[in-house]
Amino acid sequence: MPTTRVKKEEDFHEWYNEIVELSGLCDKRYPIKGMNVWKPYGWKIMMNIDRLIREEMERTGHQEVYFPLLIPESLFKKEEEHIKGFGKEVYWITHAGENELEERWLLRPTSETAMYPIFSLWIRSHSDLPFKVFQIVNTFRYETKQTRAFIRVREIHFFEAHTCHRDFEDAERQVEEDKEIAKRFFKKLCIPFIFNKRPEWDKFAGAFYTISIDAFMPSGRTLQLGSIHHYKDNFSKPYNITYEDKDGKRKYCHQTTYGMSERVLGAVVGIHGDNKGLVLPPAIAPIKVVIIPIIFKGKEEAIINRCLEIENTLKEASITCTTDLREDTPGSKFYDWELKGIPVRIEIGPREVENNTVVLARRDTGERIEVRKDEVIEKVKELFGKIEENLYNSAKRMLEESIVRVNNLEEAKKHEKKILEMPWCGNEECALRVEEELEVKTLGEAVDVKEVKGNCPVCGEVANCIVRFAKTY
Amino acid sequence: MPTTRVKKEEDFHEWYNEIVELSGLCDKRYPIKGMNVWKPYGWKIMMNIDRLIREEMERTGHQEVYFPLLIPESLFKKEEEHIKGFGKEVYWITHAGENELEERWLLRPTSETAMYPIFSLWIRSHSDLPFKVFQIVNTFRYETKQTRAFIRVREIHFFEAHTCHRDFEDAERQVEEDKEIAKRFFKKLCIPFIFNKRPEWDKFAGAFYTISIDAFMPSGRTLQLGSIHHYKDNFSKPYNITYEDKDGKRKYCHQTTYGMSERVLGAVVGIHGDNKGLVLPPAIAPIKVVIIPIIFKGKEEAIINRCLEIENTLKEASITCTTDLREDTPGSKFYDWELKGIPVRIEIGPREVENNTVVLARRDTGERIEVRKDEVIEKVKELFGKIEENLYNSAKRMLEESIVRVNNLEEAKKHEKKILEMPWCGNEECALRVEEELEVKTLGEAVDVKEVKGNCPVCGEVANCIVRFAKTY
Repeated sequence: MPTTRVKKEEDFHEWYNEIVELSGLCDKRYPIKGMNVWKPYGWKIMMNIDRLIREEMERTGHQEVYFPLLIPESLFKKEEEHIKGFGKEVYWITHAGENELEERWLLRPTSETAMYPIFSLWIRSHSDLPFKVFQIVNTFRYETKQTRAFIRVREIHFFEAHTCHRDFEDAERQVEEDKEIAKRFFKKLCIPFIFNKRPEWDKFAGAFYTISIDAFMPSGRTLQLGSIHHYKDNFSKPYNITYEDKDGKRKYCHQTTYGMSERVLGAVVGIHGDNKGLVLPPAIAPIKVVIIPIIFKGKEEAIINRCLEIENTLKEASITCTTDLREDTPGSKFYDWELKGIPVRIEIGPREVENNTVVLARRDTGERIEVRKDEVIEKVKELFGKIEENLYNSAKRMLEESIVRVNNLEEAKKHEKKILEMPWCGNEECALRVEEELEVKTLGEAVDVKEVKGNCPVCGEVANCIVRFAKTY
Repeated sequence: MPTTRVKKEEDFHEWYNEIVELSGLCDKRYPIKGMNVWKPYGWKIMMNIDRLIREEMERTGHQEVYFPLLIPESLFKKEEEHIKGFGKEVYWITHAGENELEERWLLRPTSETAMYPIFSLWIRSHSDLPFKVFQIVNTFRYETKQTRAFIRVREIHFFEAHTCHRDFEDAERQVEEDKEIAKRFFKKLCIPFIFNKRPEWDKFAGAFYTISIDAFMPSGRTLQLGSIHHYKDNFSKPYNITYEDKDGKRKYCHQTTYGMSERVLGAVVGIHGDNKGLVLPPAIAPIKVVIIPIIFKGKEEAIINRCLEIENTLKEASITCTTDLREDTPGSKFYDWELKGIPVRIEIGPREVENNTVVLARRDTGERIEVRKDEVIEKVKELFGKIEENLYNSAKRMLEESIVRVNNLEEAKKHEKKILEMPWCGNEECALRVEEELEVKTLGEAVDVKEVKGNCPVCGEVANCIVRFAKTY
C-alpha cells in the first residue's frame, strides 16, 4: 500500500513535493518564494550530511572558518567575469534602520569576494601554502526559474571550500583531491555521479575551468550536486593574493574551490525514495533503527521490556534508535517510520520474546528476517552494509542505463530522458546546435572517458573529446 | 613573562582586543565595521559552545529548526511594540538583481516575526503543546555604538529557543526550565551570573517580562549574556497562534523565548583570560591537552615515542590532544599553547622517560606536578575538574565582590565599577534618577533576592524589591 497520493513512476515532481512535505523535511508556506522553513527532521538529516562533509574536510586538512554574509559592492566588483555572472542574481541591502548606506551591500551568492581580500592579508610566504579552508553557511541567489525544495531555492544551505596554492600544478593536485573527496562523500550517501568539465560558456564566473558533479534523477534530468573549480590566478590578481617564494620573489597564488549545497539532500530524496516515503542511507538517518512492540494482551510487560533491552543494547553499540511506545497499531507505526525512511525496523512480539529472537525488516527491500537476540548488533550492522550496497547499486544501474552513446543527431532524437554522449570537435557552435535541436543542455566534456573515436555529428570534424548532453535542473 | 603587550589589570579593553587577535579568534579587518571574520580557532571554540547548547536543548526536548533569514516588512510589522523596538536596528533589502522588490525585506534581528506565522500553521491542538524549538543562526543588528569583537557586533552568531504553551502558568514553568538550562550551561563554561528582571522600559520589545542573564566583566561593567522572555499572548494574538483546548474552544498560546549569542565567548575570553592569553574551560577547548617533548640530543627517539604513546593513551580515553613536534624550543611552544588557552600541558623529557612519569602543567595556575605515566588519564581528568572549579570560583569571587548593597545615593557614589543593589519602590522615575546621577543602567529587579528591607533612596517610599544598577556593555 503506497503512502503517497502520487506514484513516483507516474509523476516524479508531484511525488517529490508530496514526500518532502509528508515526511516533515521542510515547509514551503513561508511567504517568500524559494525560502523554505527547515523542519526538525529535515534539518537533522542535513546536519548529518554536514557532519560527513566535515569528516572529509578534517581528513584532508581543511580548516573551518566563517566569513561575513554581507559584501560591499566595491569588493564584489573587483573581478570582472564574476560580477558579470552573478550581478543579476544578488540581493542588495541599501538601508540600515532609517539611514541609506553610503555603499550598497549584497548578500553572498558565494564567498570569493568576501574571503579573498582577507586571504591577501593572511597569506605571506610559501610556508603558508597550501592554504585550505571551508565554511558551511547560508547563501542567497535570486532565482527566477521555478523553485523546488532543496533543488532550486533562494536561501541556500551551502558548503564551500577555498584553497590557495603556489602554482598551477599544486592547484591541479587539489582538484584531484576534491574529486576523491566527492567519491568518498557520495558513496556514503549511496549516490553515484559523473564528472563533467563544463564548457567555456557555462563555467563558473571567473574560473579557469569547472568540473561539475552531476547525478541522474528519476525524472530523466541531471542534477548538479556540486562543482570543483580551478581559478588559476584569475582571482588572486584582482584581490592581490601573493606569497614570497623560496627565491624571494612575490608570486600570485593559484586557487581552487569546491562547492556543494542542500541539493545533496534533494538527490537523496529523489533517487532513493519510493511510494512509501523516504529511504535514508544509514550514514545520515537521524534514527537508524526503530523498535516496534507487537503487543498481545497479557504479554505487554514482557514485550516492552524486551524492546527496551534491545534499545539499550543498540545504544551501547552507538546505534541511534528509538522504541515506538505510542498507543497505536503496529501497522500505523510501520507506515510512519517507513515514511521517515528509517533503514531498519525491529519487530518484537510474544513469539520473539519466547524464542529470544527479533525480526529485522529492511526499509529498502521490505525483506524481513528473524535473528537471535544475542546477534542483533552484528546483524543490524550487516543489514546497514547491505542496504548501502543495494541503494548504491540500484542508483548506479539507473545512472548507467541513462547514458547512451550516439553518433549523430537522428540517433540522439530516439532517446528521451537520457544522458547523451557523443564525439565533439570542441566548438561552441556545434554544441549549441545540439542543445537547440534536442532541447538539452551541454553537461560538458566527459573527463572520465579517455577513449575518443568518431567525428563531431554537427560539423563532421574529427572529435577531440566525448561531450555529454541532458535535460537538467 | 606576559605575552600581551597590554596588561589585563591596566587596560582591560586594549588587552581584550589584543588577546582576541593574538590567539587567532577573529579578524576585524573585514571592510564592514562590526562584521568580523571567524578564524578557525575561534570558530572551533564557538562550535564547542554550540554543542553544549545543543546538549541542553536535547535534554529538555527542544527540536532544532532553521527559519529563513529574510522577513517581509508586512510580517515584521504585525506586532506593534516589536517594530518600535527593532525598527531602527534592521537592514533592508530593496533590490533583487536589477529589480526593485515589491515589498522590502529585512534581515532577521531575531526570528519571532519569521517563525510565528508558521507556528500558527503548525499548532492545532492542545496535544501539540508544549511546543519547543530552537535554532542557531546568523542575525543582524545595525549597531551604532562602538563595536567590539563578540560583545557588540552587527552580524551575530545567535541562539534562540521559542516555545508555545497552553496557558500563562505553563509558560512560567518554561521560564523556570530556561533558568535551570542557563545554570547548567554557564557552569560548564565556569561563568557565574545573576538573573535580573529588566524594568518595563528596557524589556524585550513585545515581551510581558524579560529576565536577563548578566555576568560581571573585569572592566567593572556587566555583560548581558542572554535573556529569557515571557511573551504572554502578546505575539500569539497578532500572529494568530491558537490551539483547540480539551473543552473544544480555540485559545491563544502563551509563549517564551530564550536567547544567547557569541557574547558567551566574549565572556569566556574576558573573565578567564590572563596576560599570557586565553584560559579555556576544558568543556570547550578544541585541544584539551598538548604534549611537548623536551628534546635532549641522543634521546630524541625515546622521548618522541613516549609522547606519541601518551597521545594515543589520551585519545583512546576520548581526550582531544596533540603532540607538538615542530622544530622549536620548548619555551616557545609553551608560549604558543598558553596563548591558545589549552587547559593542560604535558612535558616529557629524558628524566620522565627513564622514570616512567610525565609532568602535567595547569594553564590556569601554572602549577606543575609529576605523575606516573600509567595514571595519566586519571590525573588529567582530575586536573580538568580542578581547573573548572578554580575558574568558576575565581569568577564567582569577582562577581560577589562586585555586588554592593547601598541604601542611598551618597553611599552609592563611593563605589565605582560595582553592581549596586538598593531597595526600590518600583517607579520608573526613581530608577531613571539613579541612572542619571550615577551614570549607570538599571539591570532590573534582583529576582534571586527574596528579602526586601528599606526604602527607595530617591522617593523614600517603602521598597517592594531590590533593584540592581551597573555600568553595562
